[in-house]
Amino acid sequence: MFKINENYLKLPGSYLFSMIGKKVSAYKEANPDRDVISLGIGDVTLPLVPEVIKKLHGAVDEMAVKETFRGYTPDLGYQFLRDAIIENDFLPRGVQLDNDEVFISDGAKSDTGNIGDIFSVDNRIAVTDPVYPVYVDSNVMNGRGGIYLPDQGRFSDVIYMPCTAENNFVPELPKERPDIIYLCFPNNPTGTTITKDQLQVWVDYARREGSVIIFDAAYEAYITEDDVPHSIYECEGAKECAIEIRSYSKNAGFTGTRLGFTVVPKQLMCGDVHVRDLWARRHGTKFNGAPYIVQMGAMGTYTPEGKKQIREEIDYYMENARTIRQGLADAGYAVYGGVNSPYIWMKTPKDLSSWEFFDLLLNKANVVGTPGSGFGPHGEGYFRLTSFGTHENTKKAIERIIKL
Amino acid sequence: MFKINENYLKLPGSYLFSMIGKKVSAYKEANPDRDVISLGIGDVTLPLVPEVIKKLHGAVDEMAVKETFRGYTPDLGYQFLRDAIIENDFLPRGVQLDNDEVFISDGAKSDTGNIGDIFSVDNRIAVTDPVYPVYVDSNVMNGRGGIYLPDQGRFSDVIYMPCTAENNFVPELPKERPDIIYLCFPNNPTGTTITKDQLQVWVDYARREGSVIIFDAAYEAYITEDDVPHSIYECEGAKECAIEIRSYSKNAGFTGTRLGFTVVPKQLMCGDVHVRDLWARRHGTKFNGAPYIVQMGAMGTYTPEGKKQIREEIDYYMENARTIRQGLADAGYAVYGGVNSPYIWMKTPKDLSSWEFFDLLLNKANVVGTPGSGFGPHGEGYFRLTSFGTHENTKKAIERIIKL
Repeated sequence: MFKINENYLKLPGSYLFSMIGKKVSAYKEANPDRDVISLGIGDVTLPLVPEVIKKLHGAVDEMAVKETFRGYTPDLGYQFLRDAIIENDFLPRGVQLDNDEVFISDGAKSDTGNIGDIFSVDNRIAVTDPVYPVYVDSNVMNGRGGIYLPDQGRFSDVIYMPCTAENNFVPELPKERPDIIYLCFPNNPTGTTITKDQLQVWVDYARREGSVIIFDAAYEAYITEDDVPHSIYECEGAKECAIEIRSYSKNAGFTGTRLGFTVVPKQLMCGDVHVRDLWARRHGTKFNGAPYIVQMGAMGTYTPEGKKQIREEIDYYMENARTIRQGLADAGYAVYGGVNSPYIWMKTPKDLSSWEFFDLLLNKANVVGTPGSGFGPHGEGYFRLTSFGTHENTKKAIERIIKL
Repeated sequence: MFKINENYLKLPGSYLFSMIGKKVSAYKEANPDRDVISLGIGDVTLPLVPEVIKKLHGAVDEMAVKETFRGYTPDLGYQFLRDAIIENDFLPRGVQLDNDEVFISDGAKSDTGNIGDIFSVDNRIAVTDPVYPVYVDSNVMNGRGGIYLPDQGRFSDVIYMPCTAENNFVPELPKERPDIIYLCFPNNPTGTTITKDQLQVWVDYARREGSVIIFDAAYEAYITEDDVPHSIYECEGAKECAIEIRSYSKNAGFTGTRLGFTVVPKQLMCGDVHVRDLWARRHGTKFNGAPYIVQMGAMGTYTPEGKKQIREEIDYYMENARTIRQGLADAGYAVYGGVNSPYIWMKTPKDLSSWEFFDLLLNKANVVGTPGSGFGPHGEGYFRLTSFGTHENTKKAIERIIKL
């Protein structure tokens, strides 16, 4: 009899967003006249910018004609896009990369989920707590979770590194040595980040201890402060210990268009094996490239006009971030993030639990957010608000929260 | 120190297509005046059809406007597409499916490569020989290969089921019981297929022995004969033992546009676990949906006009298949496939090895094909030609081969 991968059964249900959905539906049904505003979603709402649209239409036209039609894409992605990435996203920050160290994919979620495949099951992982659930879940699927401890909301074999107001949301170096360290800065869900000097400490640690860092930089476009690194490769020696994952989802609104990329430098070695070669093999065997049309679409983010257009969208969201942050701070709430990130992480007032505050906000202010406990045990007592709504709704929501 | 997945190191280099590329380049460099025709590629060459182009443009326009912009796609894919698939690809064949048994993906290669993730490492797999390399390689990556035996060109733990002219390319039931059986009909590389009755034997076997069948139906659009099943679910009881993988690559020219889907019926159980739920979990955790634009593009294949247009492209390729098959048969070659498939599988003449025949064809006829031995030990002595060229070049190539 065939056998399933039993590790999948260790995963608890994805309770968070389904529970939010149920509660919101129930409230709306009971109160059909109320105008419920969501600051809960992590999805963008502004359309693709004109330059991207132009490139997409152009690529569709190419696919309609035999002479310009494109079949299977190159394994690593089109060279024009890999060149544009290096030239625009890395060289201006002083980071030199070879073309074959950049792997185009269908998005950062796939890459963060799949990257574990090229490492031995026999590795110990470390994640920040709270954390984007994909890092943990995908490792559990691969057999690195141990057992789930429901009363603690954590897996026995995973090293959780608390990120709370007490340590300014900068994880401390772990006491037990992890083999694989997941870092995401600017962070989802806390919206906070770390300076280049603070990240250098992690790079030095990883090199010293022989760990590999999976650096999720999906939110780098939201960075406004000078001392915050856009790429981990701005840190000395990072190419020897780090993989970086990027996305077009949040900077260019590609959440439904799907494109991202991963950098695996050749200097990242395990013994005499280039980790890059394993990722290349996985890419060539279990993936067949992102659509030509979409890869061309991304080229629209690199033209002078396109850069201006995506910047305007980010600025639009960041005005919401300021509205939320400032409004709540002025009203006496403890708020974090929102400066280099579209996410605002707030302390729940009066020692309310994350879910109690969720219920209060929904029922009394008709505003939907995300309970911090859904992202890990140390998210308890916190709450996430996002900047992806309209200016008008965001202002209205904050006014309502302040009046609570 | 972090550890890599050592299984990756067991994979031999992907020798086949790189060796072909090298030989062709060397020949062209030495003979710049020669007109070399390739009947080697498995990639389509005709452009996307007008109905698909129209849908793609329409979807791009929707993405440009806030009111119709689409962010994250539903985990399983858009319902409009899953409904269209059931209505057009399955109901006409008498196969009823629920909407949540169909999972939209970025292509059949990803799905065939990833499907192994939801099964235990402790399963024995069986493949036909010759075989599409992804089935074996992805299982080796997951630890199911055992060790590679270079002199035999096979992995120690994989059950290979020979498909040769002697058994009419229909694999015999294996002597050792496999847990997971990969079947691809119409077959890549042999271009042959099996009847519904013959497939029923496999379904019955799988149910009896507790095996699961991964049925790759990527080439079903090329079927011309009535007794050849388009879906494994045409066989009785198949929903209890089979997963089916489909692609838009070869029927609608989506090799560079990337879309496919996988059917996991709820009846497929392992103990009290629905295998479907594991695939849903993987889909939701390690994948974030195919682009909205591309899912809309696929809708163009289901309009009356779109169906006609993709049928014309398939007919175009199938005329090449007839040209190759008939031309070579008339000249006394033993040829297989090409009736329900764009692939023609020929016996090399005069006991030449696959590579010897490759060299002869390249040097004397200036035609490029694919040596059968590249697909597995029992591909030795065979050679693959494909129908994806132009009518003119295909005719010219066959004339040259006949004159050899």
